[in-house]
Amino acid sequence: MIWTIYLSGEIHTDWRQQIMDGAQAAGLPVEFTSAVTDHDASDAAGDSLGPESDGFWRDHKSSKVNAIRTKNLIEQCDIAVVRFGDKYKQWNAAFDAGQLAALGKPYITLHDSDIIHPLKEVDGAAMAWAQTPEQVVGILKYVISAG
Amino acid sequence: MIWTIYLSGEIHTDWRQQIMDGAQAAGLPVEFTSAVTDHDASDAAGDSLGPESDGFWRDHKSSKVNAIRTKNLIEQCDIAVVRFGDKYKQWNAAFDAGQLAALGKPYITLHDSDIIHPLKEVDGAAMAWAQTPEQVVGILKYVISAG
Amino acid sequence: MIWTIYLSGEIHTDWRQQIMDGAQAAGLPVEFTSAVTDHDASDAAGDSLGPESDGFWRDHKSSKVNAIRTKNLIEQCDIAVVRFGDKYKQWNAAFDAGQLAALGKPYITLHDSDIIHPLKEVDGAAMAWAQTPEQVVGILKYVISAG
Amino acid sequence: MIWTIYLSGEIHTDWRQQIMDGAQAAGLPVEFTSAVTDHDASDAAGDSLGPESDGFWRDHKSSKVNAIRTKNLIEQCDIAVVRFGDKYKQWNAAFDAGQLAALGKPYITLHDSDIIHPLKEVDGAAMAWAQTPEQVVGILKYVISAG
Amino acid sequence: MIWTIYLSGEIHTDWRQQIMDGAQAAGLPVEFTSAVTDHDASDAAGDSLGPESDGFWRDHKSSKVNAIRTKNLIEQCDIAVVRFGDKYKQWNAAFDAGQLAALGKPYITLHDSDIIHPLKEVDGAAMAWAQTPEQVVGILKYVISAG
Amino acid sequence: MIWTIYLSGEIHTDWRQQIMDGAQAAGLPVEFTSAVTDHDASDAAGDSLGPESDGFWRDHKSSKVNAIRTKNLIEQCDIAVVRFGDKYKQWNAAFDAGQLAALGKPYITLHDSDIIHPLKEVDGAAMAWAQTPEQVVGILKYVISAG
Amino acid sequence: MIWTIYLSGEIHTDWRQQIMDGAQAAGLPVEFTSAVTDHDASDAAGDSLGPESDGFWRDHKSSKVNAIRTKNLIEQCDIAVVRFGDKYKQWNAAFDAGQLAALGKPYITLHDSDIIHPLKEVDGAAMAWAQTPEQVVGILKYVISAG
Amino acid sequence: MIWTIYLSGEIHTDWRQQIMDGAQAAGLPVEFTSAVTDHDASDAAGDSLGPESDGFWRDHKSSKVNAIRTKNLIEQCDIAVVRFGDKYKQWNAAFDAGQLAALGKPYITLHDSDIIHPLKEVDGAAMAWAQTPEQVVGILKYVISAG
Repeated sequence: MIWTIYLSGEIHTDWRQQIMDGAQAAGLPVEFTSAVTDHDASDAAGDSLGPESDGFWRDHKSSKVNAIRTKNLIEQCDIAVVRFGDKYKQWNAAFDAGQLAALGKPYITLHDSDIIHPLKEVDGAAMAWAQTPEQVVGILKYVISAG
Repeated sequence: MIWTIYLSGEIHTDWRQQIMDGAQAAGLPVEFTSAVTDHDASDAAGDSLGPESDGFWRDHKSSKVNAIRTKNLIEQCDIAVVRFGDKYKQWNAAFDAGQLAALGKPYITLHDSDIIHPLKEVDGAAMAWAQTPEQVVGILKYVISAG
Repeated sequence: MIWTIYLSGEIHTDWRQQIMDGAQAAGLPVEFTSAVTDHDASDAAGDSLGPESDGFWRDHKSSKVNAIRTKNLIEQCDIAVVRFGDKYKQWNAAFDAGQLAALGKPYITLHDSDIIHPLKEVDGAAMAWAQTPEQVVGILKYVISAG
Repeated sequence: MIWTIYLSGEIHTDWRQQIMDGAQAAGLPVEFTSAVTDHDASDAAGDSLGPESDGFWRDHKSSKVNAIRTKNLIEQCDIAVVRFGDKYKQWNAAFDAGQLAALGKPYITLHDSDIIHPLKEVDGAAMAWAQTPEQVVGILKYVISAG
Repeated sequence: MIWTIYLSGEIHTDWRQQIMDGAQAAGLPVEFTSAVTDHDASDAAGDSLGPESDGFWRDHKSSKVNAIRTKNLIEQCDIAVVRFGDKYKQWNAAFDAGQLAALGKPYITLHDSDIIHPLKEVDGAAMAWAQTPEQVVGILKYVISAG
Repeated sequence: MIWTIYLSGEIHTDWRQQIMDGAQAAGLPVEFTSAVTDHDASDAAGDSLGPESDGFWRDHKSSKVNAIRTKNLIEQCDIAVVRFGDKYKQWNAAFDAGQLAALGKPYITLHDSDIIHPLKEVDGAAMAWAQTPEQVVGILKYVISAG
Repeated sequence: MIWTIYLSGEIHTDWRQQIMDGAQAAGLPVEFTSAVTDHDASDAAGDSLGPESDGFWRDHKSSKVNAIRTKNLIEQCDIAVVRFGDKYKQWNAAFDAGQLAALGKPYITLHDSDIIHPLKEVDGAAMAWAQTPEQVVGILKYVISAG
Repeated sequence: MIWTIYLSGEIHTDWRQQIMDGAQAAGLPVEFTSAVTDHDASDAAGDSLGPESDGFWRDHKSSKVNAIRTKNLIEQCDIAVVRFGDKYKQWNAAFDAGQLAALGKPYITLHDSDIIHPLKEVDGAAMAWAQTPEQVVGILKYVISAG
């Protein structure tokens, strides 16, 4: 069995790469998926369908094009990691977590201890809270290769 | 048919009351539901089960007790309104929206235009974006009583 | 048991009224539901949320506001009647029928014999094809009150 | 991951071929599926089961045989493209779209701007509206290969 | 709580009446439902939609009209009783049982011991096998009123 | 795509082999599945778990062991063929058909014209009625390889 | 809204009564449901269907009759309380908890601290762990009446 | 088709190995899955996420990490074997069985005859009860390779 791991959230640090490197080093049978993580490309996802004068509709078109990808990947993952950084609103990460929870997909949150309180609902439905990518790799190793 | 409307999100202004008043004035056949909106009570929801020395676990216990309520109300609603204010992280509101989206529950977002961009994923899955409680009441009137 | 009957499609003749009158005359325990059938109001459903300069987005907003209503009513009906008239594209009626089919909701089509061929997929998933409102009332009487 | 793309609707122009060629040229990991697009073969799908004197039943038998194929392909696709041309009723395309919407399958509509209004419900539940096959290929490229 | 009991199968003896009488005598909070049990009416269920020269299509139309009723009642029941008599093919009863099994609805079979072997698949998915209406009433009493 | 075809029902003639041969000759990408078709082995499926003095329980044990196989195969098939012969009760075939109908799996019935009437409910939910294995092969060819 | 609370598990102490009394005293809009809690009656639930010489089949029949009740009540509850006492195997309580977890029904466990370790999987999927009926009543009060 | 068999329960004897050896000797197309069966590793599954002073929370963290694995494996299995030994509470095995039952996954119980009575609910929803690993292998051979 190949496990599919969806990596959701913050795009400004290399946490995805660290997890992928750790999993590869451990030889885990995993496939990683993710939303488009290039911020500018993501914002422009709908631009090829025609220009919009209104910012709301430009965002709307792009978010729906992005959702073609993320909806599929969320529904097909076995495990997700949802990362919250120390900046920005990151409502998309919490929105992903809500979808994961409603679909019964086990997810791990990855964030520092100073945002425990505002994340308590997101953490409450998570299967684990990790503070470092190394901890996530450790959990994946245990969950996937043990036994 | 009585329509059940779940009101999610920001608890510092009286937007819930305005919507309920407007619906009542219009004589709409609706029942409104909501998470516990008393901030202190919500944070202390799990305290009666015993004290916790670790803040993470206190939050964890309370968020799960709160979820007994919110999970039921979200699954039973016909329509939801998800409100984002101008302060705080409000990840719980985005988390609710994610659950609503995955369950196929139509929801309306309620927020100012200055946070359109960070909310684009949440708005992208919404059925409408309103900027005032009056607009929400107008939509509810149209959706529920028209015909 | 009260049976809920969703009436979908053409809005230019009084077929809905005929069916409701027939059901009432027969004393059937039914509740009828429907999309908003006032064409102008339906097209303007989203206008209260702010003006749009682009026709596509005006239609988009209104269709999503209308879908708050129709999605709920389609999911809650026990039986549907989907009516196709002799004019207009009526893609919304076929779209409703597709949703009904995917949800496993039994539906009856109501249309003249001259459009049998283009409606063959919609009829193929229907439980009955009627040509007059009287026939629909007859089927409802049999289905609901017999036994 | 191989993405499965269901191509629904109009059969009189080469839009399917253009999309398939574009996807191949881009080296996308996709598999395309479709209803039987030979009009005469589709109309005769049930003829091998015995002759029918009544046109309604000939259509009925054929549409159900065709549905053995389309129901499977719709349920198994990851993304769909639903094409409306400038002629014919094309209720089967709107019917497919309704099924896709109810199943939560992301779909892209492909049609000219002069039929925006009658397609507003179908577009309202779509993830994107494209006017050319090139635009569809562009969206597929972004959605599938980016990241 | 009112329990809904669907009574499926053989229509030539008064087993339905015996169960309903027994339940009433016991004061059970139950509602009984059933397909149309008038054989001739059932065979003619689709006749009002127009005459058919081919027996297959007459049967087809009627069986689909009947299914508008039975599909709803099967999906809405809490418990079913499926009765097999000593005559006739009764494939409709076994067909109902298959639907009940797939939907996870608990059902009780009611039949004599001489048809145990051909009914072993139907009995294998049942929650109980009764040989008399009195036994069915006994089980309903225990299940519904005990505790 | 490999299509999985579940072959249900009568075990006394070689209809399964004819369909498999026809599909192979046509080079169709199909996999056929079936219940255990050795009558004696099927009746004895539970015997290895210990002897039973009561015929009902022997049948019960065997039917449940058989259901481990059939429940999986029914849920995993894309298309089913349900065959009724001219002898025996064959309630297991009708029971399979009921499960297929409730799960939304398209199925084709295969039977002679003299049992149309008692099979009307089973045929009413079927996508096609065939009278010969050759017709079934023809439908499979069209459905699977066309386009 | 009336909340339905399923009370599962240990039948040798009056914990059910304490919770019901506490809820009544608090005026909560709740309905309590439960398996049959009379041990002897529960063991004999299938006896009216005929005697069994083999203890396994007597138990089998009774457990399936009991499941007609419990399966319905579990599927219809909004919240469950699962109680483990200090004696007996109580596998039925853990079995109920597994069903609740798989169905996404929020449940509260009620047990002493000395069995935390063997119950860790059951507690891990619970929304709260209580040690006294009073604590359960407190949680119900908060969840149901607050806000 | 490769069948996936989930092996749940007791970890102190070599029943898993016996079943795997028997299946391999028979050349069955099966893949076996299981929770982590190293008791100490399982209890420590969450330790890498940080130390806990409170035993309840250590168990809680570990049980949720373990559930990332078991929830996936239970949902993906075709058949399960649930083993109860003669010692320990083994509530996790009954909890697994409850999940399997609610998900409609066929499972076989494996236990001695002296615990028939306390396991009657778990056995009542099972498809077979075996007393030895050899019997389980026999059933798997029949179910998977026959036909």
